[in-house]
Formats: sequence, structure tokens, C-alpha cells
Amino acid sequence: MDRCIVAVVTLCMVLVMVSCHRPQKPNFIVMLMDDMGWGDLGVFGEPNKETPNLDKMAAEGMLFPDFYSANPICSPSRASLLTGRLPIRNGFYTTNTHAHDSYTPQIIMGGIPDSEILLSELLGEAGYRNKIVGKWHLGHRPQYLPLKHGFHEWFGAPNCHFGPYDDINTPNIPVYRDAEMSGRYYEQFIIDKNTGLSNLTLMYLDEGVKFIQNQTLRGQPFFLYWTPDATHDPLYVSEKFYQTSRRGRYGDAVRELDYAVGEILKTLKLLDIEKNTFVFFTSDNGAATYAKTSAGSNGPFLCGKQTTFEGGVREPAIAWWPGTIPAGQVSHQVGSTMDLYTTLLDLAGVKVPTDRPIDGISLRSTLVNNAVVQRPVFYYRGNELIAVRLGQYKTHLWTFTNPIEEFNRGVDFCPGQYIQNVTTHDQIHHDPPLLFHLGRDPGEKYFIKSHTEEYMKVLPMIQKAIDEHRKHMVPGEPQLNMCDRAVMNWAPPGCDKGDNKCLTAPPSKPHLCSWPH
Amino acid sequence: MDRCIVAVVTLCMVLVMVSCHRPQKPNFIVMLMDDMGWGDLGVFGEPNKETPNLDKMAAEGMLFPDFYSANPICSPSRASLLTGRLPIRNGFYTTNTHAHDSYTPQIIMGGIPDSEILLSELLGEAGYRNKIVGKWHLGHRPQYLPLKHGFHEWFGAPNCHFGPYDDINTPNIPVYRDAEMSGRYYEQFIIDKNTGLSNLTLMYLDEGVKFIQNQTLRGQPFFLYWTPDATHDPLYVSEKFYQTSRRGRYGDAVRELDYAVGEILKTLKLLDIEKNTFVFFTSDNGAATYAKTSAGSNGPFLCGKQTTFEGGVREPAIAWWPGTIPAGQVSHQVGSTMDLYTTLLDLAGVKVPTDRPIDGISLRSTLVNNAVVQRPVFYYRGNELIAVRLGQYKTHLWTFTNPIEEFNRGVDFCPGQYIQNVTTHDQIHHDPPLLFHLGRDPGEKYFIKSHTEEYMKVLPMIQKAIDEHRKHMVPGEPQLNMCDRAVMNWAPPGCDKGDNKCLTAPPSKPHLCSWPH
Repeated sequence: MDRCIVAVVTLCMVLVMVSCHRPQKPNFIVMLMDDMGWGDLGVFGEPNKETPNLDKMAAEGMLFPDFYSANPICSPSRASLLTGRLPIRNGFYTTNTHAHDSYTPQIIMGGIPDSEILLSELLGEAGYRNKIVGKWHLGHRPQYLPLKHGFHEWFGAPNCHFGPYDDINTPNIPVYRDAEMSGRYYEQFIIDKNTGLSNLTLMYLDEGVKFIQNQTLRGQPFFLYWTPDATHDPLYVSEKFYQTSRRGRYGDAVRELDYAVGEILKTLKLLDIEKNTFVFFTSDNGAATYAKTSAGSNGPFLCGKQTTFEGGVREPAIAWWPGTIPAGQVSHQVGSTMDLYTTLLDLAGVKVPTDRPIDGISLRSTLVNNAVVQRPVFYYRGNELIAVRLGQYKTHLWTFTNPIEEFNRGVDFCPGQYIQNVTTHDQIHHDPPLLFHLGRDPGEKYFIKSHTEEYMKVLPMIQKAIDEHRKHMVPGEPQLNMCDRAVMNWAPPGCDKGDNKCLTAPPSKPHLCSWPH
Repeated sequence: MDRCIVAVVTLCMVLVMVSCHRPQKPNFIVMLMDDMGWGDLGVFGEPNKETPNLDKMAAEGMLFPDFYSANPICSPSRASLLTGRLPIRNGFYTTNTHAHDSYTPQIIMGGIPDSEILLSELLGEAGYRNKIVGKWHLGHRPQYLPLKHGFHEWFGAPNCHFGPYDDINTPNIPVYRDAEMSGRYYEQFIIDKNTGLSNLTLMYLDEGVKFIQNQTLRGQPFFLYWTPDATHDPLYVSEKFYQTSRRGRYGDAVRELDYAVGEILKTLKLLDIEKNTFVFFTSDNGAATYAKTSAGSNGPFLCGKQTTFEGGVREPAIAWWPGTIPAGQVSHQVGSTMDLYTTLLDLAGVKVPTDRPIDGISLRSTLVNNAVVQRPVFYYRGNELIAVRLGQYKTHLWTFTNPIEEFNRGVDFCPGQYIQNVTTHDQIHHDPPLLFHLGRDPGEKYFIKSHTEEYMKVLPMIQKAIDEHRKHMVPGEPQLNMCDRAVMNWAPPGCDKGDNKCLTAPPSKPHLCSWPH
């Protein structure tokens, strides 16, 4: 009986401590979805309206309909978010083939270079504790892992969870707890290949919530980088949301993520730290339309993941910060995932590196005052600048979907869509460039003829932005050129502990990676 | 001074009267847009989010993402709304060509038959005063006009406002005030052909608001059928909204209509009758995608106006009735414009005719309790049943966009979209029928193969609904077969008054109308 009373007193003391030591610096949560499309949220017009928590988040915060990922494919997009720099600068591209997509499968030798200054590193120096929950995708070799690049905690995997995995040609992907593996997908961390049942999203939710709770108790500002991947093929979902969506398995996964977002925001309110926590929700690239009914929706936009059409890079985006961001705002600020780098540093009072070009801008005045500044968007594919947006205009210097041979094998980046001279299977260089107005024509269907007054007025302005961009462009060392089966996750740190097992790597045979599109 | 005091006293008395004589029967406002697409509202994912009043209406009411027009083209759709019956029953179709669209241009001889019992007629008998503001489109010959079919007041036009009009081969369309013309488009009622400037939407707003005010003072229940046509090509907008949209002229028109909707709802609140007024917002058919950047958006759906793909018939739809419809609801009830007939009669306590098949159902329990009942949707084109939706499944018995000759002349109903064996230019009869799941595949891209368990389970259920439907189908006398230049609006009633002029009709030469698609 006495012990119970003591316990209650202790709890009160802790609560008082929390309220006294509330950090001055705001907390940050970046929620980065995987292959989720612009059109997957009710608030962005998904017809089944199955994202009540995200829609509420938008109603309480600021919606960004003109927000972009830095690249139409996963690893480069994620590297850019954490470096504030385009893949062409931070090295997340290939020169093996012109204008082809590349990423970090298990055989990739490269990863995030030490020379890059990550958001996590700068926030760590400023007193933040940083945790990544979910997919990393910036390289899986030991030197590239999150705890070597500014994160203090990690629960998740370095690569995608797709297969086939047989532990002979291909090891299962490890799931890390901080610096060591904790098990592997399909072994200790189950995803049922037939049903798609898995508790991973719930685990990621739990990891996020506990981190928030712990940091609140510690009174130390935090950066939670929450990157679940249930909407990346193979889709997965827990029992609770299994077969609950009107949209099939993809919708089940979205519903569970929507639930998890709601739970995280609820946690902030329960802990009374919502007014000191900036939350941003977005996705790493457009919906993977080639996965057909296993893919999400890019709404009215053209094509999807791996292309520089709007469907490949226009992202769902919501900022939430009660008391600082007025509720119910829509901002047509053209934003980028790279702006999260710059914005978070600004909000934390940390200087942005000045020794290198940074492509992100601070969205502080947008968030607080709904200010809009004009800035160009540069759409790269691999090592080539493909398109540029300025204001509501977008120009295509090149057009390219995927090679006709791949398309003929059934890989279609633009299913049900065909626009002559635009959705080309050859890499077409357009001179004069194609020009579209994204307001009148969000689907990039009707190019503005080059002899019109409108074209002749607009194109020189875009050309000027391109010239300026190219003048200062020094490409980084490409990280995604070399592959080697020996570097796969055969024996990650910690493989000798618990139920884990270390596998034997084959002999090293470095070779140029093959990127099909 | 004395007179002023008397005036104040009188006003007080009027107000007391209003509050004593508040009608028991609810007022009705049906706002029917013209060629506005599902994807044109912010709440349905239009990226520029330029419909704050409609989005607010949805937040205060009930949103219907699964709501359909009775037909993919204007006149048949409108005839069905007011009769509660499919065009095949009420005669708004042609047998001149198989499965072709038809409507009521100036040369049409037919119109709404006297044998049809219109919503306006039944509500009038029940004590309602009915006004139509805007486009009628159920026939322009004297016997077909609104005041012959249950409406007590009218301000608007019987036909579309497009040209060319030269008063020699084609008279300008009359604008009626009740039973007589008040002037003509491009003469007394200006639409600037170059800029699109026109005050028509503001006039329609004013007409609607004044009618509401008058009826409130009279204490008589009303039915306002508000059908502006600013989003039908040629688009028009007033100075106030001219060049204010991020979407070009189409967006200007939408912004002005959104404003007008807001003003009407505001009027209801100011008059304190919002709790006794059921308001429904929808559109007559999908966006006219063939008009390219002058057209609206059908969001993620396939094709547009004049087709039976979702883009042709899935409509934006919002129900609003503070105090009766709980705020912020989304209903996945599959609804139809024909349900407005049945629902309004139900809410007014009026019996639905029992001497004929009625295709609408009452949405009362949906509106009040968010109940959902399963019911099929029959998608007709002209005289042919093209497709059927049941639950989330849709089957195509036929596929057809428009003839290849027309397409080759540049008329494209599905710009930027192409789906093999689906967006066909020939009329293809599918046996077995094509089957789609609209939840997983809202774009009708991936048909479910006919040997699958899913297909074999679902198709018999749909077939049963089709058999039932056909068993009771007695097509009405087709109204849209015969054309004659003599019946054009040469000398409408009232043409001999004011500034109007009567034109001389050419000799009568009735002939079969030509319907190109």
C-alpha cells in the first residue's frame, strides 16, 4: 500500500519536471510514405475517402498541393531529403546509362558519402536526439548506415522488403535495432507473402510513439524520421485493417498508415507537446503505377514513379503545428522534400551549410504567414535534367517513360495513358522544349505551341533559371554505378547474436550495375 | 420622421409573420451545374483548391463520391432528374442510330412529353412554388417550356448558349422571363465571345436569392431549380472573377459558381431558413474532355461527357441541410440524379407515381442516418444499355467512345487516355462482358479476367439485375429523332415586345436528326 503511494508521488514529480524542462527548440516529425501517390488521400480526391486522420491533419494544418519529391525514385529522393540537395549533387544517381533511374538494391556498392552533411548530423550537433523508424535506403554497407550519419536510434531496414529471398542467391533483408540487426524480414519479422499480413506498421507506430514519449520525459528535443513502407509492393497490413478497405490490399495499407498518423498526432496532444512539434507528412515518390491494382493513385496527374511527369514526383504533403501553423490553410507554394532540410534547420536555429549549394529553401514564412515565393523545380532522371517547373509552367527538355523492350514485357509506367510525343519510350530531346501550364492542364496533355505569345514570353524565363542552375552545377561522385553480390546483407552487424545468422558472402565481383530504365 | 417609425413597425410585423408561418414542408434547392466534372471541386481533389464554398458546404453536409447523372449528356440527364426516370423511359433518346447520344439543339422537334409527371408538377400540387433559374433543355417549342410543366417562374434559356448565331441560319437563343422571352443571348444578354465576360451567373444568383427571399416572406415552401451554365463551352465569367483562377477561364467560371453557391447558402442562414431547406449540388454530366483546356476535370476517372465511362457520369455531389444532415459526412451510397425526384417527393410527403416505373430511390435514410442500400446503376447511351454498376463492380456490355472518323477530325472524348479493348471507336459488344472493380481500379483500366473466381461470383449477380431491369423495360416514344429548322427559336412568345424581335422561320422540312456519336 505504501509503495503505491510512493509511485503516485513519483509520477507527479516526473510530470512537473516535464513541464519545467519543456525544450525551447521545436521537435520534428517527418513522416515519409513509400510509393504513396498524390491522389491517395481523401483530401486530394481519392474517391473512397479512407484517410480520415490525414484529412483531419490537413484541416488542422496546411495542405500543399504543389509539393514535390526531389526525384521520382526512392533512394535518390530519400538522400535528397536528408541532404537538402539534388541527387546529382549528393551522388545518388548513375552514369552507367543516360537518364536512367537507379537506387540501392542489395547489390549496390555505394551509399551516402561521408562528405554529405545530413539533417540528422546538424540537428544532433544542435542537441536533438534523432531516430529513424522504417526504411533507410541510403546504402546498407556498414559505413552508410543511419547511426554513422547522425541518427542516434534506428528501428527498420536498410533496403526494400521485396524478394525473392532464398539466403543462397539473395539474403533476406535485415531489420536493425540501432547499430545491429535484430532479425530479418520473412524470418523474425513476418510478412505473409500470400495474404500480406504483417505487424510491421504497428511496430513502426509503437517505435515512434515510444520515442516521442521517452524524449518528452527526457525534455530533449527530437527529430523522428518515420518512414514506414507498407504501401511499397509487396503491400502489407495487420489483422486489424486486413480487407477493410474499399480499395483492396493497397487501401488496407493506406488505412493502417492513416490510423498510425492519427495515433502519433494523438500522442503529441496527450503529452501536451503538439504546440512544440512540427509534423510534416509526405511521400518519397509518386505511386508505382506499373504495379497496376497494387499501386496507389496519382490523381489527375500523368504517369507515376520513375518518371518526371507530375505523377512521378507530385506528392501528398501536409504540415501540422497547432498554434504556429493556422488551421485549414492551403498553400500553393511550390515545395520540395529538400525544403524539409532547410526548414527544419531554420526552425531549430541551425545554420545551413554555406560551403556547398543547397537546393532546399526554408518554408518558415509559408508555414507561418502563408507566404509564397517563386522558385524553380528541377526534375532530374539519373544524370539528366529532364524538366523544369517555374510558376505554373513546366517545360520538358526531354521526354522518356521506359524503353519499348521493357514496355513490351508488360512494364508500363503510364497505364491507360498515352500522349503523343510526351509519353515516349525513346529518350526524346525537345528543342524547342515542350511547355505545359499545370493549372489549366495538370495532366500534361496539351503542350503550348512554340509560336504563341505565351510560349515566347514564358520560355526565356525558364531558360534563364536553367542557365543559372547549370552554371553552378558540379555533379557529385555517382554512388549508384557499381554493384557486387558480395556486398549484400550476408552478415550484417549483430548477425552472430540471438536467433540471427551470419551467411557467407560469395567472392567479390564488382561490376557496373544494370539499370533497365 | 413619423413615416420612418411606421416603416420600422411594419417590418417588425412582417418578421413576426414569417416566424409564425414557417412552412412545415421543407424548401428544396437543386443546384445543377453544366459539364462540371467530378474532379472540379477542391474536396474531390482539384489541385488548385479553388472552391472554398463548396468545400465548406461538404464539411457542413454530406459528400457523395459515388453519385451519378442518369445520362452522360445534358438534355437526357436533365429530363431524368425532373422525371425520376431513365431517358429510355421518358423519351430523351434517339433510335436514328444505335447507342448514339442526342440532345435538344434548336432544330429538335421533340421535348418533354405531357405524359411525363415532373417533379415540379407534383410539388406544385403539394403547395410548392417552383422556379427554374438557368438552362431548361427539355425542349424549346412552346408546349415543352417550364411553365407548361409545373414551374411557376423561370429566368433562363431553353437551349445551350453556343453559336454560331447569325439570325439568318440560326437565331440567337432567347432568355425567358417566365412564359415570355426577355431578350436573346449576345443581344440583350451579353456574353463577350472573345473575353468570355458576362454577368449571367450573377444574374442567375440574383434571381435565385430574390426568389428565396420572396418565398420566405410569403411563407410558402419553394423548389428552386438552379441551373447556371457558365462551365459549358463557351465559358463565361463576370469581371469580378475574370482571370482570377489558376486554371484559366474554366476555373474563373468555377470560382464564380462557387461564390454564388456560397451566397445562396448565406442567404438561407440570414433568413434563418437553413434548417428547413434541403440543398443538393451536382452536375448534369461529366466534364466535356473533348474541349481540352476549356473543359473541367473528371479526376482519376476515364474519359468524359458523352461516354458511359466513369468520367462521363460520375458527378460531384453534396447534400446540405443543417440540423437534419449531420455535418462532415461522406456517403458511399450509390446515388443518381434521378434520386432527387424520389427524395424530394419523400421529404415533401408527396406520393411517388405508381402507374409507371420510377428509377430513382429515396435517399432520406442515407441523408439522415448515413444508411447505404445496394442498388444497380444502368448506364445507357441512346437506346442501348452499355454498362451496369452493382456494389463496387461495373460491367461493360458494350464499349464505345466515338467513331474513328470523328476522332480523326480531332474530337477526342478521352484525351491522353487509351485502354485497349475499352476506349474503342467501334461499338464493341462484349460477351462475356468486361468487369471492373471501381474501388481498386477507379480508372477502369484493369478488367477482371472472366475465368477468375471473382468474375464468376460477381457476374451472375449483375446479370440478374440486368435481366430484372430488361423484363420491365418499356421504352418511351423517342423524342430526339426528328429535326426541323422551322422549329428553331425564330419567334418565341414575347418576341413582339420591348427590344425583342420576331424572326421569320423557314419552311418546315422535318427530317431525321443526325447524331454523329
